Amino acid sequence: MISEFELISKYFKKLTNRAVLGVGDDAAILRLCPDAEISVTTDTLVEGVHFFSDCDPFLLGRKVLAVNFSDLAAMGARPHSVLLSLSLRECDESWLASFSDGFHRMLEEFQVELVGGDTTRADQLVISVTALGDVDIGSALRRDRAQVGDDVWVSGELGLATLALASRENSVAYPRELLDACNERLNNPQPRVALGRRLIGVANCAIDISDGLMADAGHISTQSEVGIEVILDQIPTHPTLIQLGLPQNDLVSLISGGDDYELLFTCSRSRENDIGALSRKLKVPITKIGAVVEGRGVILKDRFGKIVEVDRPGYEHFSRRT
Amino acid sequence: MISEFELISKYFKKLTNRAVLGVGDDAAILRLCPDAEISVTTDTLVEGVHFFSDCDPFLLGRKVLAVNFSDLAAMGARPHSVLLSLSLRECDESWLASFSDGFHRMLEEFQVELVGGDTTRADQLVISVTALGDVDIGSALRRDRAQVGDDVWVSGELGLATLALASRENSVAYPRELLDACNERLNNPQPRVALGRRLIGVANCAIDISDGLMADAGHISTQSEVGIEVILDQIPTHPTLIQLGLPQNDLVSLISGGDDYELLFTCSRSRENDIGALSRKLKVPITKIGAVVEGRGVILKDRFGKIVEVDRPGYEHFSRRT
Repeated sequence: MISEFELISKYFKKLTNRAVLGVGDDAAILRLCPDAEISVTTDTLVEGVHFFSDCDPFLLGRKVLAVNFSDLAAMGARPHSVLLSLSLRECDESWLASFSDGFHRMLEEFQVELVGGDTTRADQLVISVTALGDVDIGSALRRDRAQVGDDVWVSGELGLATLALASRENSVAYPRELLDACNERLNNPQPRVALGRRLIGVANCAIDISDGLMADAGHISTQSEVGIEVILDQIPTHPTLIQLGLPQNDLVSLISGGDDYELLFTCSRSRENDIGALSRKLKVPITKIGAVVEGRGVILKDRFGKIVEVDRPGYEHFSRRT
Repeated sequence: MISEFELISKYFKKLTNRAVLGVGDDAAILRLCPDAEISVTTDTLVEGVHFFSDCDPFLLGRKVLAVNFSDLAAMGARPHSVLLSLSLRECDESWLASFSDGFHRMLEEFQVELVGGDTTRADQLVISVTALGDVDIGSALRRDRAQVGDDVWVSGELGLATLALASRENSVAYPRELLDACNERLNNPQPRVALGRRLIGVANCAIDISDGLMADAGHISTQSEVGIEVILDQIPTHPTLIQLGLPQNDLVSLISGGDDYELLFTCSRSRENDIGALSRKLKVPITKIGAVVEGRGVILKDRFGKIVEVDRPGYEHFSRRT
């Protein structure tokens, strides 16, 4: 069956003129006048696909913004305006009050304005946000600029959101403290907007890894026409998760499972100290996990240099159903 | 039960700073640099709510753009970029090929580019488009600028889309030619982009009447703080529909039923000749249907000046379910 990425590429990727960058990066870049570019993206959350029906509407109001801000962050853009399209099963005022509260608080936190929207009825809750942001001319962090010899870095700790999902489906008794961290990461992700802004002029290339580390590294590989080597043991995750001593296969599935709103970026080896300083300044863990090499594709290796097989490189809406 | 407009106003209308115009007009206006403004809008079509499951995907691909371009037209903006969020029940390639064909042809027709999007799975087909357009600084056609003494004009012929919907639900044998015209209007509406552009500097105020003539005239009344008088007999519709000799109530329901992607605008009486010239140049019927008066609210009168009661002023997603 056709995958989500094949579908986009086959039916919805056309060459664009006005857009500096169109379909196929985290967000589009449009030049609207000689001295300004904007970055614009849209992301949709569907009940039962991206969130559970019983999820906290306050957090959902935050998350639908977070997933969009994360795409702008991956361009190095600063979000300023959003539009909200809300398809509701019913008009439940207490749900709406809570959703709206989370939504507006997140807007305030990032100094972003709601400028338009649409509400309609549907059998299933579907929430689409379009986010617009500023970006300095010619400086957006694109997927197609990784250089052979670059180091590969990632922010945050990976695999927690996927473990939160897995814990709903299996009966393993994970430590409470780990589960709390996982649920927080799944339900209340923090978009790396400040980091993205500061990576301009430092990183060569960036992407958000909401579709999963391996799948999104694959996009950099394809679009930059380079190979990427990632060292499994260097991928950052929660210390308690490491202590569980999971089989390697399970660890790889968690780490590349997606829903991690972190930035994967590449930059010249000479920038290592800058990244360290940035990590301390922003209080965000940033970890070197590999290198950009000649060739194509993404290779995962263990600490001994042995290649680790990856069964399912990331989340895709349609291929997943086969 | 809370109505769609109350819902927006209660939960999602906040004062904005950056936006010249935020939630509450056909589209938002954003000033992005000293010499450029953009207009941006989002509209969602939901299967079973806005279109039938068996509708032609080629036409649906056009319509989801048309409804958004119509909002930009009502601002006097020229669409240039869109983002598409597609929630699909399944990945039916023949459906997608046809939808994509209609979508891209409509883009070409209006010289608009697809710059981003998102595809996801859902139980129900939900299609959101966000459209961005150019607008000359300070010249957008807003809802809040109608002047007492203005004439009220409307483009096109009203009530046809509503009759197309009604004909699916009742067993009346309408003339074939009328039904064809109605289905064309419902399934393949033509957004009045060229008209909107040319109304800049001519009209004081404009709105698209997709929610229905009376409801949308009501928005002008509220936001401009004026009254509006509309003469039923002057409202343009299809000549064959007039010949049917429908009861006045039915005619009023059709004419204010919505799904008419036409522009309602007000302008100074001195502009009458300009409007006539515009109508001939663009080959679009434009009809004077009333006047802006002192007071508040929208009043519909018959040819004798008698007030006509309007049961349901327009389409609302939530109040409709009560």
